[in-house]
Amino acid sequence: MTSGAEALFARDLTSQSLAIELDVVAEGRASVRLRLTESMVNGHGLAHGGYVFLLADAAFAYASNTHGPAAVAQAAQITFLRPARAGDVLCARATQRSRVGRHGVYDVTVSRDDGAVVAEFRGHSVFLPGPATPADEGEPDAD
Amino acid sequence: MTSGAEALFARDLTSQSLAIELDVVAEGRASVRLRLTESMVNGHGLAHGGYVFLLADAAFAYASNTHGPAAVAQAAQITFLRPARAGDVLCARATQRSRVGRHGVYDVTVSRDDGAVVAEFRGHSVFLPGPATPADEGEPDAD
Amino acid sequence: MTSGAEALFARDLTSQSLAIELDVVAEGRASVRLRLTESMVNGHGLAHGGYVFLLADAAFAYASNTHGPAAVAQAAQITFLRPARAGDVLCARATQRSRVGRHGVYDVTVSRDDGAVVAEFRGHSVFLPGPATPADEGEPDAD
Amino acid sequence: MTSGAEALFARDLTSQSLAIELDVVAEGRASVRLRLTESMVNGHGLAHGGYVFLLADAAFAYASNTHGPAAVAQAAQITFLRPARAGDVLCARATQRSRVGRHGVYDVTVSRDDGAVVAEFRGHSVFLPGPATPADEGEPDAD
Repeated sequence: MTSGAEALFARDLTSQSLAIELDVVAEGRASVRLRLTESMVNGHGLAHGGYVFLLADAAFAYASNTHGPAAVAQAAQITFLRPARAGDVLCARATQRSRVGRHGVYDVTVSRDDGAVVAEFRGHSVFLPGPATPADEGEPDAD
Repeated sequence: MTSGAEALFARDLTSQSLAIELDVVAEGRASVRLRLTESMVNGHGLAHGGYVFLLADAAFAYASNTHGPAAVAQAAQITFLRPARAGDVLCARATQRSRVGRHGVYDVTVSRDDGAVVAEFRGHSVFLPGPATPADEGEPDAD
Repeated sequence: MTSGAEALFARDLTSQSLAIELDVVAEGRASVRLRLTESMVNGHGLAHGGYVFLLADAAFAYASNTHGPAAVAQAAQITFLRPARAGDVLCARATQRSRVGRHGVYDVTVSRDDGAVVAEFRGHSVFLPGPATPADEGEPDAD
Repeated sequence: MTSGAEALFARDLTSQSLAIELDVVAEGRASVRLRLTESMVNGHGLAHGGYVFLLADAAFAYASNTHGPAAVAQAAQITFLRPARAGDVLCARATQRSRVGRHGVYDVTVSRDDGAVVAEFRGHSVFLPGPATPADEGEPDAD
């Protein structure tokens, strides 16, 4: 069922244009990698928070699309803990935390190559309605 | 004091490389604009949420740097309400909601050119310590 | 249509037991008030953040139930900006920020009686499916 | 160093008045328990989201005060996944996710006695300045 994530990655023009690599994909998990370039820097000379978020969001999107039905992001929250700089390789690791009905909660940690945590991200996904909608987990969807 | 935001924009390699335009900047406010290109699309064929966030984050960064001292993002939350597509021009308008001591809360609305709201963003900034730190508003910083 | 909020308030045992007052209710808006007692204090001797959230959440619930169909909270985020103490009267004012299909985004500001902002809250509501579901705003629900 | 959390609990009038029990406390972790009463119900006849948050916030407060210096909550985000009802016993388990300088990120899962997850919470804490401030982790505080 992880083929959904892989197909999504293959069609993802953002990941291709930024040379994002998909390292790991498994049920409820995905890991991606990005080398920060000079064009990803903000006015403070540090990695733009938008690219840190984008990488976390990509990991989240792939992880939430490993279950079969297509999932989209509904909301996300990010906390910036340490700066990153051009030349750093960032890794974002997403893992599913909870899934209830059509709703999923995913945690993503973004780290530098020295292992230091750059940001913590939490995303909320929802499965699109469709023929492959997952069986509900014993309780009507809170929606 | 809005010159801080303008100087930040002038040095921002991300905004330059993506052709983000700074439309408005005033005390506690900023508005930016981005034309979505084909390389900003995700595997669903829609604008990547990462670029929607990046634009909101840019508006937030400029708005929070209109007070004098340098401010950085500490955390942000985004809710995705409608899709956007390659060719759409997105506008992100940031306004300050609260400021207490070194901490600021900003709201950013991201809209398409047809006026439809694409996302709502809330960001939390903190002023960097320095000679220009603002006078506290009558209460010790909760930090 | 604000009668939905008023009926909800009348049945709300939490609001009754804490003596929360409903000050204002209008389409997309509600304002509530709570006197902090000694039993709402935490181990630091300050108002427990849980009660600050609870009051904001109550304002959000009433505001999101002014449109006709029943709405429930899906998620919320709160930032604590200043402390409050036993004896303070807190006011929480909720206003609708965006509404798309079944989803609503509400902002709530919690203030002390001296006008100082204690917390900023943002809530996400969803209308329950039912006979009174609102007409969609021209676009299929992103869910 | 977990004595900080225990002392905080002993002085916490909110926990005492609601009969919240502190089950587990260890470095970076805490677990609390609350029996939902009729007076914790909202206008929909379900547990008020404010009490679900309050319990998660309590677990977060105790977990973030196991390191020595006093910590306070700066912000929190909660996602409501399933309802709870009067009579249910809720358990909130907090674990530290990241700590950088004075800042901590904690995850809290709130479950019913049948094991079903009711809510996922993420909190951000900050250590108060003081004689016992922790040594920085090799990098100047991003603040």
